[in-house]
Amino acid sequence: MTPDVRIVEVGPRDGLQNERAMVATADKIELVDRLSATGLRSIEATSFVSPKWVPQLADAAEVFAGIRRRAEVRYPVLVPNEKGYERARAVGVEEIAVFTAASEAFNQRNINASIDASLERFAPVLARAREDGVSVRGYVSTVLGCPYQGEVPLADVVRVARALHAMGCYEVSLGDTIGVGTPGKARAMLEAVAAEVPMSALAVHFHDTWGQALANILACLEAGVAVVDASVSGAGGCPYAKGASGNVASEDVVYMLHGLGVSTGVDLDALAETGRWLAARLGHENGSKVGRALDAGTST
Amino acid sequence: MTPDVRIVEVGPRDGLQNERAMVATADKIELVDRLSATGLRSIEATSFVSPKWVPQLADAAEVFAGIRRRAEVRYPVLVPNEKGYERARAVGVEEIAVFTAASEAFNQRNINASIDASLERFAPVLARAREDGVSVRGYVSTVLGCPYQGEVPLADVVRVARALHAMGCYEVSLGDTIGVGTPGKARAMLEAVAAEVPMSALAVHFHDTWGQALANILACLEAGVAVVDASVSGAGGCPYAKGASGNVASEDVVYMLHGLGVSTGVDLDALAETGRWLAARLGHENGSKVGRALDAGTST
Repeated sequence: MTPDVRIVEVGPRDGLQNERAMVATADKIELVDRLSATGLRSIEATSFVSPKWVPQLADAAEVFAGIRRRAEVRYPVLVPNEKGYERARAVGVEEIAVFTAASEAFNQRNINASIDASLERFAPVLARAREDGVSVRGYVSTVLGCPYQGEVPLADVVRVARALHAMGCYEVSLGDTIGVGTPGKARAMLEAVAAEVPMSALAVHFHDTWGQALANILACLEAGVAVVDASVSGAGGCPYAKGASGNVASEDVVYMLHGLGVSTGVDLDALAETGRWLAARLGHENGSKVGRALDAGTST
Repeated sequence: MTPDVRIVEVGPRDGLQNERAMVATADKIELVDRLSATGLRSIEATSFVSPKWVPQLADAAEVFAGIRRRAEVRYPVLVPNEKGYERARAVGVEEIAVFTAASEAFNQRNINASIDASLERFAPVLARAREDGVSVRGYVSTVLGCPYQGEVPLADVVRVARALHAMGCYEVSLGDTIGVGTPGKARAMLEAVAAEVPMSALAVHFHDTWGQALANILACLEAGVAVVDASVSGAGGCPYAKGASGNVASEDVVYMLHGLGVSTGVDLDALAETGRWLAARLGHENGSKVGRALDAGTST
């Protein structure tokens, strides 16, 4: 197991875009600034997807312009196309994330394009990022199941991950969008991808909809992954299952890693305090069990 | 990893004794009967601890007398002493469970006795069980941490587990009572005990207070354990942390095991239906993420 894991905090983007509550711009800025002070090294700050699709993050430019960026922290933002890229660059974005799915049905339904067509759409964005010296992270969603087609062939996951890496993504995040995966399948998926893309260029992104996220992360750590996506307070429900949980909580991941003797650089108490603050703003229970246990005053 | 895991369903006992709601005797009987129809092979039916200590289960004799026992299912009940043993035997109990803690402070605080004194108290119960042909399961609590003393020496866990096994317990369940353990520590604890007690005589019992239960179970499965305690719908909060969760949900464990290709004999849909029914009776949210995902209609 790696001695050090980098957490990619996706709460301000993947979390907030799936929450019903509209969060004020000032609170989004405060969220990122609070996260920046916890020792996190990657914080996905917002999304430049069209406000038509993600109204929750319509203030992406104001948020990004408002945060206090630290030199030691990466602040990727989600970008769907050249227009989003230009909006992002106009406010000083230095790292972007592009996204597609391993499921043909999911791509058709979400962006009305095949997997291959979705990859072609990124090509100009990636070309410009390369010219501009902008780092690019790639997301592959539905790697362990799809809400529309069910099973997703492993070969499609590998093909999409390899394509994103070959197109210039320094890191490819493998996402179990609907949280149906279990540890054996998660590890087999990661290992299949790692046969074609270096493990050091891979991240895992688990949703906890079926309660399996931490076990899946453990299995992937055992297989050698060293980058894990997570969302503070578990922000972000599951858009495919009303009332079900979505992102795994960053606090729970960090607690497990520290218990395993894996360092993250993150101050768990500061992270949990931020999760508590965010849950209050979202008006629902803290989705982090570590956060709730700390609130309840369990002795550690 | 073992190809087959026996789930010990502890909801009717460890679950209900820690719930605030008083459940009607008829509902307790229905709960056990519903569980008996799911394919479970061990169901802890109730507790013969004094009603002074556990008022929620004061109707233990009526519950046990009321359930329809199936030949292929074990129905252990918790028994603290000879008086409890006699009450249990009077209604036909054929398997009991005794309990102590690996933490000196926990034993002192809970039963006003040292670890060694608590073991001595069981001796007459175990002697009578042996004479009567009654099977005995042993619980060791606080194996990964104690709400009063914090760290619990591994040597104490091993000593207590070995003593229970030597006294005649056919199975010793190792419990992380406050749910603070993480996978590396859980596996190291199990392996230390397994050096002295055969792995086939060990079970693991994780609480999900800090969100670590499934990851800990996975780590212990990898180390060879084949018996896992769990509580349907995650019934039973954490008595040491108000508002925090307690027992790991049986549905979530079964979902993981089946995904790993490990058979349990349990019909997950029937189990989830029972969890849904119980959560409604307890008047709170279903503590099983699998249960909630199924309710939400996520595609599997």
